[in-house]
Amino acid sequence: MGIILKNTILKGSRTDIRIDKGLFTEVSPHIEETEEDAVIDAEDNIIIPSLKNGHTHSAMTLLRGWGDDMKLKPWLEEKIWPMEAEIIRDPEASYWGTRFACLEMVKSGTTFANDMYFNLPQNIRAFRESGMKAALGTALFDFFDTEKTTEMKALCEKEFKTFEQNSMMQYTVAPHSVYTVSKELLSWAGDFSKAHNLPVHIHLCETREEVDKSFSSFGKSPVAYLKDLGLLSPHLIAAHTVWLSDDDIQMLADYGVTVVHNPVSNMKLSVGNVFPFDKMKTLHIPIMLGTDGAASNNNLDMFEEMKFAALLQKHHTGNPELMKAKEIFAIASGSESSIFPHISGEIKPGNHADCLLLNPDHSGLNPDHNTLSNIVYAAGSSCIDTVISGGAILMRHGKIDGEERIRTGFRKAVKKLFS
Amino acid sequence: MGIILKNTILKGSRTDIRIDKGLFTEVSPHIEETEEDAVIDAEDNIIIPSLKNGHTHSAMTLLRGWGDDMKLKPWLEEKIWPMEAEIIRDPEASYWGTRFACLEMVKSGTTFANDMYFNLPQNIRAFRESGMKAALGTALFDFFDTEKTTEMKALCEKEFKTFEQNSMMQYTVAPHSVYTVSKELLSWAGDFSKAHNLPVHIHLCETREEVDKSFSSFGKSPVAYLKDLGLLSPHLIAAHTVWLSDDDIQMLADYGVTVVHNPVSNMKLSVGNVFPFDKMKTLHIPIMLGTDGAASNNNLDMFEEMKFAALLQKHHTGNPELMKAKEIFAIASGSESSIFPHISGEIKPGNHADCLLLNPDHSGLNPDHNTLSNIVYAAGSSCIDTVISGGAILMRHGKIDGEERIRTGFRKAVKKLFS
Repeated sequence: MGIILKNTILKGSRTDIRIDKGLFTEVSPHIEETEEDAVIDAEDNIIIPSLKNGHTHSAMTLLRGWGDDMKLKPWLEEKIWPMEAEIIRDPEASYWGTRFACLEMVKSGTTFANDMYFNLPQNIRAFRESGMKAALGTALFDFFDTEKTTEMKALCEKEFKTFEQNSMMQYTVAPHSVYTVSKELLSWAGDFSKAHNLPVHIHLCETREEVDKSFSSFGKSPVAYLKDLGLLSPHLIAAHTVWLSDDDIQMLADYGVTVVHNPVSNMKLSVGNVFPFDKMKTLHIPIMLGTDGAASNNNLDMFEEMKFAALLQKHHTGNPELMKAKEIFAIASGSESSIFPHISGEIKPGNHADCLLLNPDHSGLNPDHNTLSNIVYAAGSSCIDTVISGGAILMRHGKIDGEERIRTGFRKAVKKLFS
Repeated sequence: MGIILKNTILKGSRTDIRIDKGLFTEVSPHIEETEEDAVIDAEDNIIIPSLKNGHTHSAMTLLRGWGDDMKLKPWLEEKIWPMEAEIIRDPEASYWGTRFACLEMVKSGTTFANDMYFNLPQNIRAFRESGMKAALGTALFDFFDTEKTTEMKALCEKEFKTFEQNSMMQYTVAPHSVYTVSKELLSWAGDFSKAHNLPVHIHLCETREEVDKSFSSFGKSPVAYLKDLGLLSPHLIAAHTVWLSDDDIQMLADYGVTVVHNPVSNMKLSVGNVFPFDKMKTLHIPIMLGTDGAASNNNLDMFEEMKFAALLQKHHTGNPELMKAKEIFAIASGSESSIFPHISGEIKPGNHADCLLLNPDHSGLNPDHNTLSNIVYAAGSSCIDTVISGGAILMRHGKIDGEERIRTGFRKAVKKLFS
């Protein structure tokens, strides 16, 4: 038994779409339904691929608005790190933070997130319950302490052993960064990734300080350092990547690394540089878009993120032709990278059935001179009517099952965490 | 007979609020209603002042997405100007464009707009029907042609004579800019404004070209040129103001000019510079926030505009402490400028009753560590439940009367205009 979406508007034409076992199986002007099919009349809603969040820390919804308008160091030291220490000690808080994040992501049209945080079992539970797809890893820190290194390796091995990888869930090795993780643990992460065919998820070249420190400690850039440790490969997904030399960019291209652009977080934290989109595009580096965590964004809305990405490029380069609506939409829908095999960015037979129905009456979608421009620059996520992930309907007419229960649980968890 | 809003959450405390004849008349933990009062139970919705759009061209909703990702000159010459010529010949299109813009503005929490466009009578009709407040002027161009100058003066005089100014509607003189309007017409606009106590609404220092041309034509900056013509005064509201010298900024401060920041439009059109907020703040220049028209934004959402404004300042200056949530909210709600007497930015007795009720269950408003931070950085306009303008309820539980009729009229007008 499959689902048939009747009367969707796909790239301007009325189209029926069959979904079976999590995949689009037929895309055609008219599909005849059988008695076995569940039929959904899309009533001329616009259908688009859903958005894929390339880098986030979901449970940080717990810390949304906890510290803002502050310099990075006091923000981290006075606000974020003390509360994260509490979160690590409170797995239920992690669960509710992640569960609430999933609610927010589904509402805003995101069906996949590449997540790095603590208390992995709770995060797995939250994503699984939400119906979203995810790539999940524990943020590995050893702060150059060999005892911690051993602990982190053991944790990873244990987590991987019990992780049920399937078309919805992917385990990742997630060493936090070159300035928080030892050479030993980084190398091990690379080897572990190769041995088990796993993505490696890392923060890379987010701030100037990180790059300066890499040169003073290792005599080379963070990218060159990772190259020496054998981590540059198509398995690597690197978040931020704003402070890069031309050599760094060339290395990322040569090794097929996927990079994740996080414009809102970069602007809010004033990292002082801008993702080198033009150069990356020229070298065909696979790009994803991400929101980062809710503490530095402060939401998980990929529609908003697309607009910030495109406008920041235009502003920074003085070139309004750079990062067109079509380009950032391809990036945000996951069309560019194949690091996560269970997502796809186009609606066609054989591809993964992750998609959105948009309400064509929404102000931002009118007039319809250019649908993609409206989606990126005008509509925002409030135009979403229906969300489908892995062939299952997660939201219909703006409603998500169990929403109130999740909000109540989240609020209780916040209260306990901050008491 | 007044309205009593029961059980609002005002700055964290449960509060009842009485509205009478368009003003807040009582703000108190408990107000006893009489039989004459209409009572609205706000059910612990958060109450905030509504947002005020300091610079827009409402009817340009007709051109949303008509041209994007283009350089300024071809965008204007090939896309915008040819269609604006059509709009000028089609007053009904102006009406529907403006009417649809009002729908969009109310939905996104804006109850006042300072509008500059063509076909003024239609724009007046659209704003009046919407229940919004507005300051309205015809965009005056003479392109240095003396015949046009005379025409424009006569048009203004005629418009002003028949304009019914009241607590909802304000006439403005709106010479487009120093590069499209002659010295003669600019001077006349200044005199007319003084004679009738009217705001003058102008584009100022939006692009580098404008400033360069001013130096080559007049031997001085656009600001110094307006000063010589007698236009700098508390009556002047100047949009964009991104290409300013320190001397320019000092002149704006000395003469009490109100400036309007339009970050999204500036970024999208790649004007190449950033509104000098820090210096303006130091000199106490009154600031408003605006969306510009939907062709260069591409929406009229002041919630989104607040986030762009704050993040652009942080990014550009490298200082995350600059333009705090509280500051940009004060600007966006109209607290800083007194150029329009019929708006106010705070909820207290005697102030104009323009306000919003926000749904406290919205993801972006949770957790509630810092309500203003959530409003500016996280929630977006989809958190709005109810909109009140001039003491009248324009939207309740997300619904606006006549919405479908307006959308249908707008779509017909677009079809005709582009046929």
